[in-house]
Amino acid sequence: MKIGIVGLGLIGGSLAKAYKKAGATVFGFDKDRLITAFAKLAEAIDDELSEDRFEECDLILVAIPPVPAAAWLSENAPKLPKTALVIDCCGTKRNICEEGFKLAKEYGFTYAGGHPMAGNQFGGFKNSRADLYEGAIFALVPPDHNDIHFMERAKKLILPAGFTKLVITSAEEHDKMIAFTSQMAHVVSNAFIKSDTALEMGVAVSAGSYRDFTRVAYLDAEMWTELFLENRDNLKYELDVLIAELSKYSKALSDCDEQEMLRLLKEGRERKIEVEKKCS
Amino acid sequence: MKIGIVGLGLIGGSLAKAYKKAGATVFGFDKDRLITAFAKLAEAIDDELSEDRFEECDLILVAIPPVPAAAWLSENAPKLPKTALVIDCCGTKRNICEEGFKLAKEYGFTYAGGHPMAGNQFGGFKNSRADLYEGAIFALVPPDHNDIHFMERAKKLILPAGFTKLVITSAEEHDKMIAFTSQMAHVVSNAFIKSDTALEMGVAVSAGSYRDFTRVAYLDAEMWTELFLENRDNLKYELDVLIAELSKYSKALSDCDEQEMLRLLKEGRERKIEVEKKCS
Repeated sequence: MKIGIVGLGLIGGSLAKAYKKAGATVFGFDKDRLITAFAKLAEAIDDELSEDRFEECDLILVAIPPVPAAAWLSENAPKLPKTALVIDCCGTKRNICEEGFKLAKEYGFTYAGGHPMAGNQFGGFKNSRADLYEGAIFALVPPDHNDIHFMERAKKLILPAGFTKLVITSAEEHDKMIAFTSQMAHVVSNAFIKSDTALEMGVAVSAGSYRDFTRVAYLDAEMWTELFLENRDNLKYELDVLIAELSKYSKALSDCDEQEMLRLLKEGRERKIEVEKKCS
Repeated sequence: MKIGIVGLGLIGGSLAKAYKKAGATVFGFDKDRLITAFAKLAEAIDDELSEDRFEECDLILVAIPPVPAAAWLSENAPKLPKTALVIDCCGTKRNICEEGFKLAKEYGFTYAGGHPMAGNQFGGFKNSRADLYEGAIFALVPPDHNDIHFMERAKKLILPAGFTKLVITSAEEHDKMIAFTSQMAHVVSNAFIKSDTALEMGVAVSAGSYRDFTRVAYLDAEMWTELFLENRDNLKYELDVLIAELSKYSKALSDCDEQEMLRLLKEGRERKIEVEKKCS
């Protein structure tokens, strides 16, 4: 199995290391030539992914943010072989999939949208790990939801990097889901930490549920800005739902309304039970 | 060492089991006589904490919610011995401490406010565990912040239950801190789960930061209603700060304002770094 990887940051670097560990031959490229050289030295890749290597690859993973990923696909579309499966790894899927499917049709290569669903608040090749995706889900947006042969092929190429399973989704469903889960967690965490109380309290706050809530506050601001704006309709919807819900608790406190507070908390508790049932 | 425990729910039950494990003699009482009997059967307590046992106790822990705790102290104040240290375990401290310090002065027993800082989303004696407080902090509101002798005595009595350390605080500081950390985490978690997206997505959302965010949504609505209303000024302050902060991100999305989103995320990132420095 030969894997080409574009972008050797946290995601591309971790995928490279995981495929190497799984015994694949890995070609990698990073716009920072020093990173490419370093990845080779660290044996995360076998060699640089130059254009003349494209032909050899069974799978080409484009592990850079949405806008550069679309630009890379557009620039390299004429050179991409019919034999490879080309998948991006962007955290939002609608724009990149639209571009990818269009180019794939035009130039005759096979493209799918992808999202390896694990991460870390610390980015870059230096934080990449062979086991980052162990047990994680890979969300896949296939060109055709009825093509079982394609799913089998994708599965064989993707699972060796450590993923537990492929979840087949559409770009629209993916972006809606990711706004609610990962993106909202990042926004809320990033906003939560801004209370002056956090600074005043120092060491006293360093425990329990507070830690869960602010773990991802330490984020890559540039990357997340791009991802949030790519998905702004879904994220704004979720943010406004949360703000409206939180405002109800705030009003119950203002009104010192015990019955309303109890109702709100029971409602949340019951919803949690209902959601967990659907998840299990 | 002889310990009296009033209330054998998650907190009292866990404390009873922890002290038993540490070799202490434990007397316990729960308003539900079946629980008291069951706790004795389960060897979490040696015997029922009847009034005539008060005299024997080195430490009496009142592990019931703020309003009943204040009522219990008020009712039992005349019978509490001068030799015991009486500490409540309520999650909010201003009201109970005011009542406790007043009664202690009036009747001549020694009282301090306490908060064993660990918990679980599942309450009751059936979920209590000897190791619930292993590694946890015990927040202590002493009657006199300069009484080193008292601190030593409290430490010797409290740490055997598994706590790593006592944090000495005031009722006011405690309530401010607890609003920001534990209470806000519970409100936000309980509100977060209410987005329709959670129900629609089912299994797809069951991973990553989403899990951290909704873990405590499943809460004891009655207990938290009481705790939130006890601390409504602090909690409302924190809630409104968060709503205002979240509204800025929402506006940046409406305006499609990349620079403002980047600024907001960098601000949160820098604050997280600053807070972590103070915590380390």
